[in-house]
Amino acid sequence: MSPYKRKIYLENKPRQEARHEMLANFQPKRKVEWIPSVSALGRITAEPIFAQSSMPHFHASAMDGIAIVAEETFSAHEQNPLLLRRNEDFIHVDTGNEVPPPFNAVIMIENVEERDEDSVEIIEPAAPWQHIRPIGEDIVQEEMLFPQGHEIRPVDIGALVAARTLTIPVIKKPAVTVIPTGNELVSAEDAASVGQLIEFNGSAFVNYIREWGGDPLLTPVVKDDPEKIKAALLEAANTSDIVVINAGSSAGSKDYTVHILQEIGTVYTHGIATRPGKPVIIGKVNSTIVVGIPGYPVSAYLSLEWFVRLLICEYLGVNEPERQKLKVKIGRRMVGSMGAEDFIRVSIGYINGEYVANPLSRAAGVTMSLVRADGLLVIPPDILGYEQGEYAEAELYKPKHEIENAIVFSGSHDLTIDLLSSKLKAENRSFSIQASHTGSMAGMMAIKKGEAHLAAVHLLDPETKEYNTSYIKRFLQGTEVVLYPFLRRKQGWLLPQGNPLNIQSLLDIVEKQAQYANRQKGAGTRVLFDMMMREEGVSPQQITGYEREMFSHLSVAAEVKGNPDGVGLGIYSAAKVMKLDFIPVADEHYDLLMTKSFFESEQGQTLIKVIQSDDFKQAVEQIGGYSLVQELEPLFF
Amino acid sequence: MSPYKRKIYLENKPRQEARHEMLANFQPKRKVEWIPSVSALGRITAEPIFAQSSMPHFHASAMDGIAIVAEETFSAHEQNPLLLRRNEDFIHVDTGNEVPPPFNAVIMIENVEERDEDSVEIIEPAAPWQHIRPIGEDIVQEEMLFPQGHEIRPVDIGALVAARTLTIPVIKKPAVTVIPTGNELVSAEDAASVGQLIEFNGSAFVNYIREWGGDPLLTPVVKDDPEKIKAALLEAANTSDIVVINAGSSAGSKDYTVHILQEIGTVYTHGIATRPGKPVIIGKVNSTIVVGIPGYPVSAYLSLEWFVRLLICEYLGVNEPERQKLKVKIGRRMVGSMGAEDFIRVSIGYINGEYVANPLSRAAGVTMSLVRADGLLVIPPDILGYEQGEYAEAELYKPKHEIENAIVFSGSHDLTIDLLSSKLKAENRSFSIQASHTGSMAGMMAIKKGEAHLAAVHLLDPETKEYNTSYIKRFLQGTEVVLYPFLRRKQGWLLPQGNPLNIQSLLDIVEKQAQYANRQKGAGTRVLFDMMMREEGVSPQQITGYEREMFSHLSVAAEVKGNPDGVGLGIYSAAKVMKLDFIPVADEHYDLLMTKSFFESEQGQTLIKVIQSDDFKQAVEQIGGYSLVQELEPLFF
Repeated sequence: MSPYKRKIYLENKPRQEARHEMLANFQPKRKVEWIPSVSALGRITAEPIFAQSSMPHFHASAMDGIAIVAEETFSAHEQNPLLLRRNEDFIHVDTGNEVPPPFNAVIMIENVEERDEDSVEIIEPAAPWQHIRPIGEDIVQEEMLFPQGHEIRPVDIGALVAARTLTIPVIKKPAVTVIPTGNELVSAEDAASVGQLIEFNGSAFVNYIREWGGDPLLTPVVKDDPEKIKAALLEAANTSDIVVINAGSSAGSKDYTVHILQEIGTVYTHGIATRPGKPVIIGKVNSTIVVGIPGYPVSAYLSLEWFVRLLICEYLGVNEPERQKLKVKIGRRMVGSMGAEDFIRVSIGYINGEYVANPLSRAAGVTMSLVRADGLLVIPPDILGYEQGEYAEAELYKPKHEIENAIVFSGSHDLTIDLLSSKLKAENRSFSIQASHTGSMAGMMAIKKGEAHLAAVHLLDPETKEYNTSYIKRFLQGTEVVLYPFLRRKQGWLLPQGNPLNIQSLLDIVEKQAQYANRQKGAGTRVLFDMMMREEGVSPQQITGYEREMFSHLSVAAEVKGNPDGVGLGIYSAAKVMKLDFIPVADEHYDLLMTKSFFESEQGQTLIKVIQSDDFKQAVEQIGGYSLVQELEPLFF
Repeated sequence: MSPYKRKIYLENKPRQEARHEMLANFQPKRKVEWIPSVSALGRITAEPIFAQSSMPHFHASAMDGIAIVAEETFSAHEQNPLLLRRNEDFIHVDTGNEVPPPFNAVIMIENVEERDEDSVEIIEPAAPWQHIRPIGEDIVQEEMLFPQGHEIRPVDIGALVAARTLTIPVIKKPAVTVIPTGNELVSAEDAASVGQLIEFNGSAFVNYIREWGGDPLLTPVVKDDPEKIKAALLEAANTSDIVVINAGSSAGSKDYTVHILQEIGTVYTHGIATRPGKPVIIGKVNSTIVVGIPGYPVSAYLSLEWFVRLLICEYLGVNEPERQKLKVKIGRRMVGSMGAEDFIRVSIGYINGEYVANPLSRAAGVTMSLVRADGLLVIPPDILGYEQGEYAEAELYKPKHEIENAIVFSGSHDLTIDLLSSKLKAENRSFSIQASHTGSMAGMMAIKKGEAHLAAVHLLDPETKEYNTSYIKRFLQGTEVVLYPFLRRKQGWLLPQGNPLNIQSLLDIVEKQAQYANRQKGAGTRVLFDMMMREEGVSPQQITGYEREMFSHLSVAAEVKGNPDGVGLGIYSAAKVMKLDFIPVADEHYDLLMTKSFFESEQGQTLIKVIQSDDFKQAVEQIGGYSLVQELEPLFF
């Protein structure tokens, strides 16, 4: 058995313990470089910086005028003008000129009467040091401008240049080599064919590292081959201050990193008590710390921050930056794993004066859960989780005022919501739509529970064949809401190009055993499909794929696109952007449901204004498959 | 009379009105550029960005194993192994490989028993879609990743690459030309001789502009010549999105900018109701906004932020960033100017659980007041100011935790305090010393009033010839303080090199009419000098320069350095760094006074530890003129 195949198990080391241990073993060889002060923005001073020169570095006139000896002017008076001779009693000075000794005051040119070429008269005495900026008024030579470890800001550059301190010693940025590994990966530049996944973590890593003040180098993708990985690690350890190796950090048969590190160096940690992020490796090769980062992007970016940012800050001698914290109310229950910290990406809505946090996808593979997160919430290892209505502290990924101005959207997915979001931002860039696509029923419930301002609904009542209103009356009794008629949109069969199975109806799906891409329970499209099934007398067992649920029209379309035997029910616009065939089935009402307080708010009224704008109407009609409701008035419930 | 010499008066336009009016006249010609996503960190999206590809873009195996049709495995059981044939019933897949239809599940290789080359056995059924990452699990093709106006973060770059959206449209950075003007100025590269001031505002400006997302261009210094300024403005207006011209914006005889703008364009504002910052000009040449910024650095940097940052944000379509706000208690009274906003740079100390703000220098020419500021406090135009003990809101220039960890130092100035500050930061980088050099008496009073944690004092009692203790007993009754013996240091005459007037004593200063550089009232050095005068029977009238006060040893040394007839009383180290002659006069006690609670705090104990370290002792002795007090114990009062 190869030494790289030993079965191993991950530790469950507390994150802070792993961090402390790593730091204790980090002996950075800090390098110092002298750079021009004008290019030092954001750099960290390596030593205390002293002023090379005073500012001003001579007694400087603050006015255009004449420099005189104040004590010699004390007799000057309107009734008794004083005559002064050039070069003996005065010299001419402009703003900024030196006032040399013995002169100790300046009289403004406006208050000087010229007699002849070599003499002037004054009628008022001067106070000593008037209109003079004395040596060192701003900066005194040799004064300490900044201690070591100071991050240079624009104003500091002004002061440095003023003090003629034109080059300064700063900490060289630590060289951080990032090694992506994986047989399945291709570099971002190479087009990924089916079966090839694009390497994208590395591109995020180098930008994180850059932002934190490091100097990143991304190597080409290294195959899952122990010898190649070993060679890459040895070379990187030789040339860098910190090494990051991505994936291969777990305990599977192809996870070689920990074995290689044990062979060529030391392993301090393999596995930390966090979800996600568990399979982290911390080790050392020669004198260089190596951090093995898990492959799933959310685990990857979180653990990069926990370990690599810490190393970079330690190298630079600065504290880790802290994000703003906010007390939030838990919207939906969040369950943790005892014995581990759980990091939950949350959306935070500002609703009825409270900051309400709801979990986004907890899958470590969903980059978008981090992209869309307003904040991060940690369930500590010693508690079970947070119940709805409890309060907890979240770390914010966005400024608080952005969260306060966001419109929390729930309910049915439609591509026009993206368009609306974009047009709303163009109308008032402080406003944004924070959308989660939960389906019509869930959207309605979110409004009821005060978890959303706005929900899109298209719920067909099988009895009355009416949309939405009967549901509102049944489920939202006692809640003041407004139903704003928004769109008519075409629902229909989404089919691979050319419709290879020649599907024309629900019965064709059954007969030809097409693979159906279904939507989640409570989605309006699911309600429609289930109604059609009942009407045709088709049971779920007759539909291949009925059990698997997708959460948006685009997901259904993507599924159909990849499968010649596929079919789904969805909207025309999804078929159009994904270049699928489309057979219309229904023309449905897709309306906006909102709380009355939101409808009356500035955000609400701005939203309505955008919806009613010609610009928005044209853009919607351009997509196709829609018509905007023009005539109807909002309905108050 | 030249058209550029008309006497004009500044307006007093409210700042917000000037901002709104400027924006109303700003019609930016936004340009869009397509750039690689991996280089887009910090850039602003010009349009909504949609995913070019799903992630994953095929059903991908999440494990090494075999892909099978789940429904065909339902009979598999430990007692009833199921034989599967390669290519018919299964295919081999590695992590990340495609799982093509009709396969819809993966069985881990660990759970597969190889029979022969072409067949395997399984003993457990597979659930549909197990160990498969379905198409679009993370990102669905055509989904909107970001709206327009979104600032790209590292995680976004990960998502963009994952979605194979490898180039994106971003707003081109606005071109901002900065024109420094002034006869007295030379560019930073040219060594400034006496009579020449170095142009440093421009260097700060370009870095501010860069930080705000603009693309700055700094032109060479333009002389105060209307034709040259006109030519520079016309050229810049032609080639840039925004033009900044520095100085010449006031109403003096050489302040040409406003006249030129009236001639070649439009002037909207000349003078805003702020202190500092009043002489701002806002105008337009062709379709380009020109902002005339006052010359004094504090006015300059504040007004650049008020106007130029606003233009850049407007161009980019983003909101102006907001600084953290903090409620502070007013330490020393701050008086405003009715009818204008007063912007006071403040130091903020965290003392006895309160954030106490004290004004720094209010002179618009003192860059260091902005460099050293912890925050900015605005006195609105309709109130007189803030009284001691009142509360007001400050905008923070530093993170709150830095302010909380800072040791507020007051009292006598010494160069070893800089050294101590630097060594303290090396010991614990969260700690810093925030020093204001107020003199011994003021330092003692700051401790009494709870305005400082720590003060350096060297007050000689003329009666007892003892240092400090008698003053503490007299002035700090009822305050629990600790006096920590710190240094013995040499005070003496600071003299120009070679001692041209041959000063050896106080009486020489009187006799030779040397120009004495005095210290402020309450400074220990002033107390010493006054005592020497009394002992020698010399009166203030006999000392030339007695009335003018300087606030530090270095200021005195800088003054003496610039004047062959100068002399001052000061410490050896100041003479040494400024290369002056030094004649010792006294060996004095320079001690640290602190509140008992600070002495006992972590900061206090860390400070003591640093003082007692060999490293610090050696560094102090290397400066010369000092000896550290080794034997003495802290005295508790």
